[in-house]
Amino acid sequence: MSDVKTYVAGHKSPDTDSICSAISFANFLTQMGTPATPVCAGEANKETKYALSHFGFEHPRIVTNWEAFAPNGGNLYLTDHNESKQIIDGYKSMNMCGVIDHHRIGDFETDGPVFIRMEPVGCTNTILTKLYVENNQDIPKNIAGLMLSAIISDTVLFRSPTCTETDKKMAHKLAEIAGVDIEAYGLDMLKAGADISDLTNDDIVRTDMKEFSEAGKTISIGQISVMDTTDVLAKQDELVTALESLRNANNYDASYIMITNILDESTTLLFSGDVDAVVKNAFGKDIKDNSVFLPNTMSRKKQIVPPILGAMK
Amino acid sequence: MSDVKTYVAGHKSPDTDSICSAISFANFLTQMGTPATPVCAGEANKETKYALSHFGFEHPRIVTNWEAFAPNGGNLYLTDHNESKQIIDGYKSMNMCGVIDHHRIGDFETDGPVFIRMEPVGCTNTILTKLYVENNQDIPKNIAGLMLSAIISDTVLFRSPTCTETDKKMAHKLAEIAGVDIEAYGLDMLKAGADISDLTNDDIVRTDMKEFSEAGKTISIGQISVMDTTDVLAKQDELVTALESLRNANNYDASYIMITNILDESTTLLFSGDVDAVVKNAFGKDIKDNSVFLPNTMSRKKQIVPPILGAMK
Repeated sequence: MSDVKTYVAGHKSPDTDSICSAISFANFLTQMGTPATPVCAGEANKETKYALSHFGFEHPRIVTNWEAFAPNGGNLYLTDHNESKQIIDGYKSMNMCGVIDHHRIGDFETDGPVFIRMEPVGCTNTILTKLYVENNQDIPKNIAGLMLSAIISDTVLFRSPTCTETDKKMAHKLAEIAGVDIEAYGLDMLKAGADISDLTNDDIVRTDMKEFSEAGKTISIGQISVMDTTDVLAKQDELVTALESLRNANNYDASYIMITNILDESTTLLFSGDVDAVVKNAFGKDIKDNSVFLPNTMSRKKQIVPPILGAMK
Repeated sequence: MSDVKTYVAGHKSPDTDSICSAISFANFLTQMGTPATPVCAGEANKETKYALSHFGFEHPRIVTNWEAFAPNGGNLYLTDHNESKQIIDGYKSMNMCGVIDHHRIGDFETDGPVFIRMEPVGCTNTILTKLYVENNQDIPKNIAGLMLSAIISDTVLFRSPTCTETDKKMAHKLAEIAGVDIEAYGLDMLKAGADISDLTNDDIVRTDMKEFSEAGKTISIGQISVMDTTDVLAKQDELVTALESLRNANNYDASYIMITNILDESTTLLFSGDVDAVVKNAFGKDIKDNSVFLPNTMSRKKQIVPPILGAMK
């Protein structure tokens, strides 16, 4: 069985933490004696591509169906996700070995015991940094740069309410190893990701989209980060129409897109579906034109998903 | 919110690892700055009482329903379990903070991210030993003794196939701190636990009983360890009758009891319910009088639960 391959994969609609955590955990496993290959569920976004390029990494191989990609099976670790809807399709043919994540735990089940490490911190790579340290493993300079990029991305340069002291501490440790000025590099990376000038309306509403289920209903919530919301909100009506198409195409009960302003740390939440009452209950605000403005809101995981799923119950 | 209490609890039908892990993790949390109280779901068995007494611990407080015990709620960590059927009733009124476990992950779900640490090792206290070490926390001498007792119990003095090199390594570290001769103390503790002379048939079939669900069916599997099976197997028919009462009283699809011989490392599995085909498929052996003999079998988690749940699918 020694020629069974081991893979590490992040979630569908990959973001920077998802792709970088697959690379950094695969490297960890390899250093610990289990050669592992990172893969990703789709093409990296601009922010992630900036980070990969800056630290000299190739784009990981894209896998959209495990049965097709690895017909003979293999070992699979997940990073940055655990809910079945976010896992690359066909994963039941793989031998599930473990999860490293910082999200709520959903419908993840195994037949036997596996390795699971979840902590309520801002970024999967923060947990991975601890894992390297606990196991006395050196972090290669370019891997440290990627891991730092993920923490900057998930915490929006430490501004997100999901950011913990542990995230900051690990980020500074990684910056030292990588030889990177966090603030200067971080702003450059976030700017590269926030450029949406070449995106269609369909692209925008599908950005970083994740599915969630509650009370027998499935919804999607995407998030796009910008430095200035003027242009994107000028076409709010067109975006709601694009959300409606997305919702119909996937039979979702509702589809949401968070338009997050990185600089003033606010989010405009647009949605399609008959969920005015859900959104009103979730955030205690009146709804106008399928939209609600949420100041001091940047985190889908902490500030959007729990109230919406709660209101759906 | 600083007067919110934090509790740590093991599973229903508590065994030595379940009770000792609640005590050792509560102590860890307390040392780390979050005062925590260990509780247990029921009365300790003889083996656990031997360990508690040997290292000078009181029996932890018994909690059978969280809503009744803590009407104002509180923070809750689970050790040595995660499936809802094994959690003390009424737990949904508590704020779920995390899990330390070494079993398969079942139907555990949270609204937000929590602390989860699971590893495929033989004992929860092995993971907890790592947690103390990683966080540079000294393990008090009597706590080390309890943690060692749990590893000896779960691995049956390193004989169980669930025992890993990590379990052995941590056990030796704990034995050194506790000043205990593993082999001598371990045999005394296991003997104390294997004394079933005062148990009724109903007691025997309920020993260390856990519920499992698969394909919409719920079953129970208990386990009792003895040094000699002669006496207990002489009344096999009465035990199957007791299992049938247990099954009817709880509406289980099937009820199993593992009678495990510690010395020759074998298990006689008795059962009630219309599951001859399931048992036959699970173990590839012919069934006789609601019983099957399984040599080299000591682990419910690794050798009994996966094949039975697999055969139920």
